[in-house]
Parts: sequence; structure tokens; C-alpha cells
Amino acid sequence: MKIVIDAYGGDNAPRAVIEGTALALNEWNDMEFILTGREAEIRAELERAGIADSDRIEIVNADSVITCEEQPTVAIKQKKDSSLVIALNIMAEKKADCFISGGSTGAVLTGATLIVRRIPGVKRPALAPVIPTADAPFLLIDCGANADCKPEYLQQFAIMGSAYMQGVMGVESPRVGLVNNGAEESKGSELAKAAHALLKETNVNFKGNCEGRDIFSGDFDVVVTDGFTGNIILKEAEGFSSALFKIMKRELTSSFITKIGAAIAKPAFKSVKKIMDYKEYGGAPLLGINGGIIKAHGSSDSKAFLSAIRQARKYVLGGVTEKIASGIAQIEAQ
Amino acid sequence: MKIVIDAYGGDNAPRAVIEGTALALNEWNDMEFILTGREAEIRAELERAGIADSDRIEIVNADSVITCEEQPTVAIKQKKDSSLVIALNIMAEKKADCFISGGSTGAVLTGATLIVRRIPGVKRPALAPVIPTADAPFLLIDCGANADCKPEYLQQFAIMGSAYMQGVMGVESPRVGLVNNGAEESKGSELAKAAHALLKETNVNFKGNCEGRDIFSGDFDVVVTDGFTGNIILKEAEGFSSALFKIMKRELTSSFITKIGAAIAKPAFKSVKKIMDYKEYGGAPLLGINGGIIKAHGSSDSKAFLSAIRQARKYVLGGVTEKIASGIAQIEAQ
Repeated sequence: MKIVIDAYGGDNAPRAVIEGTALALNEWNDMEFILTGREAEIRAELERAGIADSDRIEIVNADSVITCEEQPTVAIKQKKDSSLVIALNIMAEKKADCFISGGSTGAVLTGATLIVRRIPGVKRPALAPVIPTADAPFLLIDCGANADCKPEYLQQFAIMGSAYMQGVMGVESPRVGLVNNGAEESKGSELAKAAHALLKETNVNFKGNCEGRDIFSGDFDVVVTDGFTGNIILKEAEGFSSALFKIMKRELTSSFITKIGAAIAKPAFKSVKKIMDYKEYGGAPLLGINGGIIKAHGSSDSKAFLSAIRQARKYVLGGVTEKIASGIAQIEAQ
Repeated sequence: MKIVIDAYGGDNAPRAVIEGTALALNEWNDMEFILTGREAEIRAELERAGIADSDRIEIVNADSVITCEEQPTVAIKQKKDSSLVIALNIMAEKKADCFISGGSTGAVLTGATLIVRRIPGVKRPALAPVIPTADAPFLLIDCGANADCKPEYLQQFAIMGSAYMQGVMGVESPRVGLVNNGAEESKGSELAKAAHALLKETNVNFKGNCEGRDIFSGDFDVVVTDGFTGNIILKEAEGFSSALFKIMKRELTSSFITKIGAAIAKPAFKSVKKIMDYKEYGGAPLLGINGGIIKAHGSSDSKAFLSAIRQARKYVLGGVTEKIASGIAQIEAQ
């Protein structure tokens, strides 16, 4: 299995990328890596990480880096020598099974779509992070790749998300929910109503509408929505938990007694934060592309890159691309 | 000041409604109330609450009740003798300044729109609860009345929400944010981009896009979005905090030591829940109707009805309907 990694993607690149790769080399001996970026610097980092002589690492030189400030379409077209474009070209040439980058989300989306291209029949690729709850985690699709969607996109998202949850997370028959502002079938926006009708006819385990209060209930494995709503859902959880912890901190430090209680309970609070931290599940896959594309968090450290590599491994072993292709072919044939 | 209350709206009606009215009678001596519903039962409850001889309470008999299970449009048209329809007719006849009901949200929306009608120029009335954060609370508009919106609706929501935050919450120059999946002006759905352009030209204190993570930041007083997204935002907060408290409870009871800490810190947890409980702010106003319409929570107890009455009082004293009318007339004239 070969994974291509944009060694210059992310706030802590290339060091964290290479340290993560070192951890992965140690954990799995059937994996090979291609790192793209400035060769001399990468060599120095490999040396530092103690893996300079590994025959499972290949470096492909790339002189430039695409930053988060650049306009994605322009950057992808102009910076042919960037670590991102060169890594995506390796995917397009089928020289690697999965791709990882912690770089600009927009550039990864645009680049993967233009260079690696979509699975035949896929209308729109979608960004689909796995998010923890008190019980089972769920996949939220789409999370920002497509602000405006058509009902058929949402139908495909359900297929794509189900394939991922089966292949990577080992969920046998993922329960699919459609985000909607009401539980009843008759409720919702025009988009949600039309998508509901389509999903009922689709070969996925469709459980009906998922109201806002059900998203984090653990009752669904795949939560389907347009990229606008999905982005709001994801970021609201982040902002809301910050607000809640802020209030909690204020209340818990309001008196001597509660301060003592808080100090004793501190390890439990840390676990709560850790449980709700979706970085634990690696990065967000971009589903619908003809090959595995994992967008790691920009702030990823070496452990987070290791998680992303683990995720890439499962993506390949789980045959996610093939599962999506066959699911899409099935609705195309109808 | 005269408030008309649907005495049969809500899970705990009529008792909680009448107990809330009794509290209000005691708190303000310039307020009068009209209660609609089964006269004999209301009389018995007034007796029980010790306010049977108040000359500031009038009962208007209504023989039937619209339930949450009924289809709103059908129920409003057929049940002319319901406590809800009779109360709304009193508003339409300008015999009261503000209306309160804890009954079916759909029936209140439909009934208010059909019977009391919109302020001239208002395209769509919107449901707009005030929601707490760690700092200042904000108004979320629309929260479910209009699943599909046009940019002009969102422009009007900004005006309506600003009028409410000024009149009821005393915010001098409410900071308006537009829910969007990106901070930059160029980002977002077609709806959000068009609304952004309109809001820049509108006489409100528009602060730009509000990402999901900013909603609960306290940086905005009025958060504008379509009713689909607003409904998801509101209910996600509810579901997410349940999930978080569930995890926290599990972690805090995982060992003897954390159990002790949790027991000591318990009052602080209660305060957190109370702070995040949006029932504290009364009900959700339906803005854009030609008169004050307050939708109290279905589960309201007497204290929640008192809050709703306080809110109705501020709505009238703050001249919210008049403020909305003049704001809408201003954009109509452009």
C-alpha cells in the first residue's frame, strides 16, 4: 500500500508530517510513503526523525507551497511545482492509493477535483468528517464543499457516506439521516423534501429525517445535508462547546468550594474535551474522488498525522472508492 | 396595557397560564389581561389562584382547543370557537396590545398571519427566540417559520430583529450577523451572498458574516438566517448540550474521586444549565405581524408564563411593531 503525503501541508509541516510518517513506518510494515516538497529539507527532517535510511520512503521534489491565503483555483493552475499539485498528480497517475494533506481545504478540494477527478457518475465530491457523540460517532456529509446542492447530490452523499462508514469505521449497515427542520416526511425545505423522496428509493439504510437535536444523539451513522448547513452544524458544535466551557469555568471558579470540586474533577473535564475532539478520527475524507483523499486538520501534530495515515490505510483496505463507484453505478442504472 | 392570553395553550394550561397571570397581576398594576378558553374552568382556576375578584382580568369564552397534532391551516379555518382563534380575533380587532400562547407553534404562525395579518410591506413573519451565550444573549431569526427564503426576506429579518433587540432587550445599536459558511464576503450559498449584498445597503448595524463558530460568541445581537438553518442551529444547541452533559456525567462518575468533585461542583453545573436555558427569556416572538405575538414554550410553567408576560410588556412599551413598520417602510421607499 502506497500513501502520498503533501509534506508541506499544515501549520506544523514539514516536521509534524514527517514525525507522523515515522510513527506510521514503525506501526505498519506493509505501508510505503511518497513525500512531496523541498527535497533537501525533507531529507534533513527524515534524518532528525531517524528514518533517513528507510527504503519505504520516497521523496518527490516540489519547489513551492500553496498557502491558505491563495485563491484555490488560481493557485492549483499556476503552481504546478507545488507539493500539493505534485502529490495530486501522483494520485492521478495511480502511483499511490491514498493522498493526505493538511494544507488549504479549498486548494485540496479544487485540486483533487481538477487533477484526480471524480468517480464516474459522481455529481459533486463532498467533505465528510467523522464526529464524536456521547455514543457512536457519525459522519457528516457535506461539510462545506458544496454550499448549494440539488436533491440528487444529497442522494449521492448518502451512498458515499455509507460506503465510508462501512469500509473505514466497520459499521455494517450505516443508519442514514437527512438533516431537516421537522421529523415528519412532509416537513422541510424544498431541497430536503425532494431529497427525502429520493432517499426512500435508494439502496441505503435510510432512517428518515434527522432534526437538529438528533444530530449528536448517536442515532445516525451518516448525517446527510448540503454543504452550507453541514458547515454551520460542524462549526456551531465547536463554538457552542467553547461557550459552554467558558460558562462552566466561570461558575466552577465562583467560590472556594466549587473551585475544590473543579480541581478534583479536572481529569474528567479533560476526557470530555478529548472525547469531543474530532481530530481523533484523523482528517476529513473528500468522498467521490477517484482515489482516497484525506484532508488532515491544518493544526495537525505528529499524532494527528498518524491518525490520518491510519485512516488512509483503512480507506484503502476497506475499498471505499470501489464501494462508492458501485453504489453510484447502481443509481445511475435505475 | 392589555394582553390577551390563550389560556388553553401549552402542556400545563390552563393552570400554569393562570398562575403566571396571577404573578403578573401582582408585579405590575398597569396591566390588564383577557383570557380565552372555557369560562367555567378558567373561573375555577382564578379562584384557586386567589385572583377571582380582580377587575383587571376579563374572560372571553372559547369552547374548543387546537392541539399540536392538528394540521394548522385546517384547524385555524375550522375551529372558530377555539381559544387560539378567539384570542387572535381580539388582536385583529385591536382590543389588546399583545398576544401570548403556549399552544401549537404551527397554529400560532398560521393563525397570526391569517387573522392578525402582517405589517404592511412585510414579506414573511419570522420566529425569533432570544438565546443565551456566555456573554450577551442574541436573537436568532428566522427559527423555523420559513424553511425556504429569498434574500429580501433575510434583509427584512435583520430589520425586524434589530427592532426587537432595541425595544425589548434595550440594545442601542444591535450588531447584525448573517449566518454563512465562511467569513469572507465572497463566500457562501447563493442566498447568503445575495442577502449579504442587500444587508450592506440596509439601515442596520451589519457586521458581516457569522460563521457557525461565531453564533454563540456573543459578538452578535441579531443572527439572521433562513428558517431551515435557524431551526437546525437552535435544536443542535439543545441536542449538543445534552450529549455533552451525558459524557460529562459519565466521566464525572467514573471514579470515587471524580464523584466527590462532581458532588461539590454540582451547584455550578445547575447554574450552567440555567444560564443556557432559553426559556428564561420568555417565549419566541413572531415578528412582522401587526401586533405583538409571543409564542411561549409548550412546556411553560407559571414562571415561564410570567417571563412571557414580562416580554409582552416590554414589546408594547418598546414600540416594537411601530419600529418594524417604520424600518420596513424605509426599505420599501428605496
